[in-house]
Amino acid sequence: MHMHDTGLWAARYQSVRQQSLAIAAPLSDEDCGAQSMPDASPIKWHLAHTTWFFETFILERLEPGFAPFHQAFRVLFNSYYNGVGDKHPRPQRGLLTRPAMAQVRDYRANVDARMVALLGRALDDAARTQLIALLTLGLEHEQQHQELMLTDVKHLLAQNALQPEYLAAGLPPAPAAAPLVWLPFEGGMCDIGYAGSGFCFDNELPQHPQYVAPFSLASRLVTNREYLAFIEDGGYRNAALWLAEGWDWIRAQGIEAPLYWRGKEEFTLMGQQALDLERPVTHISLFEADAYANWAGARLPTEAEWELAARHEAREPGAAAGLPHPGEPVSAEEGGLQQLFCHCWQWTSSSYAPYPGFKPAAGAIGEYNGKFMVNQYVLRGSSCVTPAGHARASYRNFFPSSARWQFTGIRLARQP
Amino acid sequence: MHMHDTGLWAARYQSVRQQSLAIAAPLSDEDCGAQSMPDASPIKWHLAHTTWFFETFILERLEPGFAPFHQAFRVLFNSYYNGVGDKHPRPQRGLLTRPAMAQVRDYRANVDARMVALLGRALDDAARTQLIALLTLGLEHEQQHQELMLTDVKHLLAQNALQPEYLAAGLPPAPAAAPLVWLPFEGGMCDIGYAGSGFCFDNELPQHPQYVAPFSLASRLVTNREYLAFIEDGGYRNAALWLAEGWDWIRAQGIEAPLYWRGKEEFTLMGQQALDLERPVTHISLFEADAYANWAGARLPTEAEWELAARHEAREPGAAAGLPHPGEPVSAEEGGLQQLFCHCWQWTSSSYAPYPGFKPAAGAIGEYNGKFMVNQYVLRGSSCVTPAGHARASYRNFFPSSARWQFTGIRLARQP
Amino acid sequence: MHMHDTGLWAARYQSVRQQSLAIAAPLSDEDCGAQSMPDASPIKWHLAHTTWFFETFILERLEPGFAPFHQAFRVLFNSYYNGVGDKHPRPQRGLLTRPAMAQVRDYRANVDARMVALLGRALDDAARTQLIALLTLGLEHEQQHQELMLTDVKHLLAQNALQPEYLAAGLPPAPAAAPLVWLPFEGGMCDIGYAGSGFCFDNELPQHPQYVAPFSLASRLVTNREYLAFIEDGGYRNAALWLAEGWDWIRAQGIEAPLYWRGKEEFTLMGQQALDLERPVTHISLFEADAYANWAGARLPTEAEWELAARHEAREPGAAAGLPHPGEPVSAEEGGLQQLFCHCWQWTSSSYAPYPGFKPAAGAIGEYNGKFMVNQYVLRGSSCVTPAGHARASYRNFFPSSARWQFTGIRLARQP
Amino acid sequence: MHMHDTGLWAARYQSVRQQSLAIAAPLSDEDCGAQSMPDASPIKWHLAHTTWFFETFILERLEPGFAPFHQAFRVLFNSYYNGVGDKHPRPQRGLLTRPAMAQVRDYRANVDARMVALLGRALDDAARTQLIALLTLGLEHEQQHQELMLTDVKHLLAQNALQPEYLAAGLPPAPAAAPLVWLPFEGGMCDIGYAGSGFCFDNELPQHPQYVAPFSLASRLVTNREYLAFIEDGGYRNAALWLAEGWDWIRAQGIEAPLYWRGKEEFTLMGQQALDLERPVTHISLFEADAYANWAGARLPTEAEWELAARHEAREPGAAAGLPHPGEPVSAEEGGLQQLFCHCWQWTSSSYAPYPGFKPAAGAIGEYNGKFMVNQYVLRGSSCVTPAGHARASYRNFFPSSARWQFTGIRLARQP
Repeated sequence: MHMHDTGLWAARYQSVRQQSLAIAAPLSDEDCGAQSMPDASPIKWHLAHTTWFFETFILERLEPGFAPFHQAFRVLFNSYYNGVGDKHPRPQRGLLTRPAMAQVRDYRANVDARMVALLGRALDDAARTQLIALLTLGLEHEQQHQELMLTDVKHLLAQNALQPEYLAAGLPPAPAAAPLVWLPFEGGMCDIGYAGSGFCFDNELPQHPQYVAPFSLASRLVTNREYLAFIEDGGYRNAALWLAEGWDWIRAQGIEAPLYWRGKEEFTLMGQQALDLERPVTHISLFEADAYANWAGARLPTEAEWELAARHEAREPGAAAGLPHPGEPVSAEEGGLQQLFCHCWQWTSSSYAPYPGFKPAAGAIGEYNGKFMVNQYVLRGSSCVTPAGHARASYRNFFPSSARWQFTGIRLARQP
Repeated sequence: MHMHDTGLWAARYQSVRQQSLAIAAPLSDEDCGAQSMPDASPIKWHLAHTTWFFETFILERLEPGFAPFHQAFRVLFNSYYNGVGDKHPRPQRGLLTRPAMAQVRDYRANVDARMVALLGRALDDAARTQLIALLTLGLEHEQQHQELMLTDVKHLLAQNALQPEYLAAGLPPAPAAAPLVWLPFEGGMCDIGYAGSGFCFDNELPQHPQYVAPFSLASRLVTNREYLAFIEDGGYRNAALWLAEGWDWIRAQGIEAPLYWRGKEEFTLMGQQALDLERPVTHISLFEADAYANWAGARLPTEAEWELAARHEAREPGAAAGLPHPGEPVSAEEGGLQQLFCHCWQWTSSSYAPYPGFKPAAGAIGEYNGKFMVNQYVLRGSSCVTPAGHARASYRNFFPSSARWQFTGIRLARQP
Repeated sequence: MHMHDTGLWAARYQSVRQQSLAIAAPLSDEDCGAQSMPDASPIKWHLAHTTWFFETFILERLEPGFAPFHQAFRVLFNSYYNGVGDKHPRPQRGLLTRPAMAQVRDYRANVDARMVALLGRALDDAARTQLIALLTLGLEHEQQHQELMLTDVKHLLAQNALQPEYLAAGLPPAPAAAPLVWLPFEGGMCDIGYAGSGFCFDNELPQHPQYVAPFSLASRLVTNREYLAFIEDGGYRNAALWLAEGWDWIRAQGIEAPLYWRGKEEFTLMGQQALDLERPVTHISLFEADAYANWAGARLPTEAEWELAARHEAREPGAAAGLPHPGEPVSAEEGGLQQLFCHCWQWTSSSYAPYPGFKPAAGAIGEYNGKFMVNQYVLRGSSCVTPAGHARASYRNFFPSSARWQFTGIRLARQP
Repeated sequence: MHMHDTGLWAARYQSVRQQSLAIAAPLSDEDCGAQSMPDASPIKWHLAHTTWFFETFILERLEPGFAPFHQAFRVLFNSYYNGVGDKHPRPQRGLLTRPAMAQVRDYRANVDARMVALLGRALDDAARTQLIALLTLGLEHEQQHQELMLTDVKHLLAQNALQPEYLAAGLPPAPAAAPLVWLPFEGGMCDIGYAGSGFCFDNELPQHPQYVAPFSLASRLVTNREYLAFIEDGGYRNAALWLAEGWDWIRAQGIEAPLYWRGKEEFTLMGQQALDLERPVTHISLFEADAYANWAGARLPTEAEWELAARHEAREPGAAAGLPHPGEPVSAEEGGLQQLFCHCWQWTSSSYAPYPGFKPAAGAIGEYNGKFMVNQYVLRGSSCVTPAGHARASYRNFFPSSARWQFTGIRLARQP
């Protein structure tokens, strides 16, 4: 899409922005205000923060005669950009009953109108280049928050004894999972990181050479059935399977199953459901993924192994619309590497670190990714709630080793 | 009011119940869902819990063919009655985005209709006696929650950098406070506790003889001006004035002024206001009240001293309507004991303990007061947000020594 | 003892001081350095702090040409006197491996020699009066720490899987406990607080009139056998018996028996022993004492009731020497009020508060008692590790409601 | 050293074992018992645990008629081996006043005698191979604890206001640091990990190919002078320099200088000293090292870069005797890579992870390293308190990103 295709950019902008409102549509204003834990944010906050991003990083720089929609929003909806100034304390986002949802909708509408107007203005090439780069970043940023909206609201609803459904639509039972096949990869010198002409995040850059030893990768994700076997074999009670920190953690927290399992049922965005043994296990920590792999006589892949194997697919197959789409279960006939995208993010054994030569952007926007590159682990692929077209083979998601409220799963690796 | 005056009871019931909705009226559904700290509850929760009280303790016992409005509400809206069964965890009341406010309003309407119907039924005298006793308790209980609704929402709005107002009406400046006069009381043997024919809580019973040594009481509450002098004299930096636990606490918490002071302004239910130096200081802990009294060369009264002095007033003068009414400032001309009611709850040096011969009621209703009689301190009087007609001279309010979000103030005492 | 009986005062001083060393005698220097929890202190710290008390409050004021034994000790061994200056952080007392025990012994010997020399000096009457008053306070203070040394070392040794004994001497089985008899008291106006000519702490003053309603008191303490029946009847699992804060606390802490019970054994200063069912139950919190009393259909006494009943005994019968003496079990023949002293401190329902007219002393010494008069409860009597001659009927011990490492027990009361 | 050189092995065993006692020699028994924080252990515990290692992993397997020195020591002195059984809680190691130091010395003497006897026994080759492998591991393990003894005792003494010295010997001022020179390395495919015939830890295996991009490494460590310039330039107040987690951490902890800096002085094992600006900065976290590198326009090296650069040195030059030896400052004339060993452990940007093909040993001994491979970062080199001959180019030390009590420093890297 050429940067001077003004109308196309405006259409794309409005499409992505509209999708955030669509995600909020099944929810009441009350649902949108609550924060179930410090790691999660209220839906209303997501809707406002993504708007703040466009207002702060684009309108404030490029809009003639810029004036903020509301002075206080600069602080209220700043997530973590120290370069922008003060921030509202993260664990207290659920206390922001004002501005009301209606005012946040107004905020969105106001910024959207100004953004569309700005896109239609005549700009010199330097300004337009900057505009399109920031616009693209803002839309990818909004897509990331679209996924978080769904994981955060799932976590919120899961705290409620009424077992509320986000969507009433039931989930059909999955067909039997395909047999797990070990696919060998030769490895060798390869280029890791993004090198295409489209968008990527700064943490996927620069593409750089890396040596990868030969390895094998499982053809599909670990299923609920397989994970249940691990549990029933005493997996959560056998210290020998666990990283020391993980063992201490599951015992201190009393963890003995994936986050949303309740006996043989599972809490889902469609409410409480019978546990579907054919689907990939999800909502587990890195600690649990690692213990499972040990139990299974395998290991987790490195992010380079995963990327090398997934290289042939530039982007995940477009899922329908960005509302939760469970991903089609793998039918038994298919061969090859399955469930790379659209099912669960896949824990790797790679800690989240800068690629050789990584340089964050100048200014506050440089805080986007780089400052989080410590004590977190990389996940690859995408999940059933990742917006269509958002992920790709070089995409690096990252969370702390104890995170469980994302749609996280397991793909095994082993020596060839 | 005779127990057979069915219509009058129904009218009183509806009047008190309506008042809770009136308190919620200026608030959005979003405002009503948030919980700013574990000690506070969402407005929606207050509205539902007070309804649960009538449903659980009256309808469940006395309504023919009783069926609950919603089975899960028994757990969701149980505050602390172990005898009733499980409870939703207190710090997570703000996560109950379902039931929606609308459904809670339906719950209230449903229970109200059934209560009024029950009041109109023919009942034998024993049943009617029980009904009226429980109804009265339920209404007094609801009035207690009406005060908490206002203190809780004040705490919530105070967390918001937008400084939202609960009411737009400004607060007129108070006239100059009257001079503080020391009023002597002879003391001697006296009867402490309630002995009238109206309603009182079980913790005001039984009336019992007690010896009170001669004492003097300040004619009015300590003002903001006086408290500011304490601060400016280094009151918060002088360990010698403080109880050891209080000193450690203010230093650990970084406390150096009343809860809602912000420089020379104060956050109020009418938004941020200039600090009115003529009004009584409020939103202070027992620790601060005690340190101020030490600084002033005085002490806090015991609850017996307070009650003895206040005995001549059976109930506080009816405040207008139960919405926050700041209480009229004391005009300089008045003599005698002023500001007993309708301004601030007044910390006493008495720990909250059972009166000699105290017996809690049988069953879960007996958990109302008795099980809290440890590590709390008694406050006497009433505040500007106490519903009209709720308090009386023998009334015992109680909070932990560090509580500051109630309208708490200081009346000094000393040896005569 | 006349204040001019120089030799007698010196002898008394040396006798009390020697007793502290005797308590430490069975312990290694290593034992003396460890701190098992913030509430407890190392033996070495007790030995140094009691010495600091004499040096700071007597020698510094009255010794000609005073120079401190070691400048840094003023901070290291200050317990809580803000008026004296800085303090070493309480939870880190166990890290003071220097000064060594040997140096602390030198410190004691040095201060002792200077104290004896000061006692032998000619002083005017005002100075001698002050000297004797402070000396007496210092010795009573040291006796309080002698008890703490034994409770603190018991707590320390109890953490050790080797089950070390403080004393090798076994504890003979107690004879059968006498039947519990309810002794009625008429109550009425009485004078509470100390009024004799000997020593008392400031918190026992002033004696003041108080009305006490008629009551009955149990003739002896609750036994291990009786407490075991409470446990076996589900006492720790029945919320209806507990104060709300106590119930939350035992569940959060996983408490289901007295502190040192291990099945049917009990850890004692003589090592692990079979639980002696005839002895008084000890090492329980106020919460547990209160729950037991509820279960038994009784209540805890107020401190005034206890003192009134115990009034006829000016002091407890002198126990042998101040090392742990379990107290003679009550033989069945005795009548009257038994086990007032020398067995367990007895929880009362009275919160620790100043008596009417209480005035702490001027200066740092005034911090001795007054600043702790909040959120604690009074215990009366004395325990098997209280030094002989230390307690009396008006003596007020006090601890938070959750304290269990002292020798605390239960005497029941009820309406007559 | 051939495995049948019985006498040589016994001599080496005794030499290493003796060194631990030499480290404890300047300390009193009291010093040896205290634990200053959960991450540190008492000296006595180190002395006993290293002995437990030989008893549990060698004598228990290979000694005929094995009987433990003391049954309870199996639990008391187990550090973290779940495969061996229960463990004494780590934060309570300082409460083990029993066994006494004298008994721990007896324990050491007893195990030493049995070990020497075992070494002298005739064993078949398989048994002797196992013996020598475990013996070597035990001695390397003991050396690791020798370093910890010195860092732990430094931390303990630093808590004491008396500023005690571990050693009385003063530290001579260092000569001026050499200019920092950037040394370029070509990188390319290289073999990382140990491949010699001597001892290495399992985490250094297997040697494996890795591609390293060209890089430059600083010729020496960052000095106190340079780090002071960072501080004086506002380094600790500039969020833009910090990893997000590091920024939150230094603000929550109030950190604004290396751990033992006190103004322009530094607490050392030789007591409080003037800060020597020529020496390498030490006792900093990974967060601080990373922020400094950002400020300096550089970055931390990866562990592969460090190892590649250091490859030419098989082991660090033998430091004198294993007592703290500050490492000779780099004289200005030297060229090349300086201060690789014997000064400070050097933070790398590499998280601690298994090498491709890593396999922990079977049984409890396999818990030695592998289970800690998460949420920690690798340090390379060795420090002034690392025993002589212990480290090598492939050696991987590891600590959490917030650890500061080790002798940790900074070597900068950058793109060539």
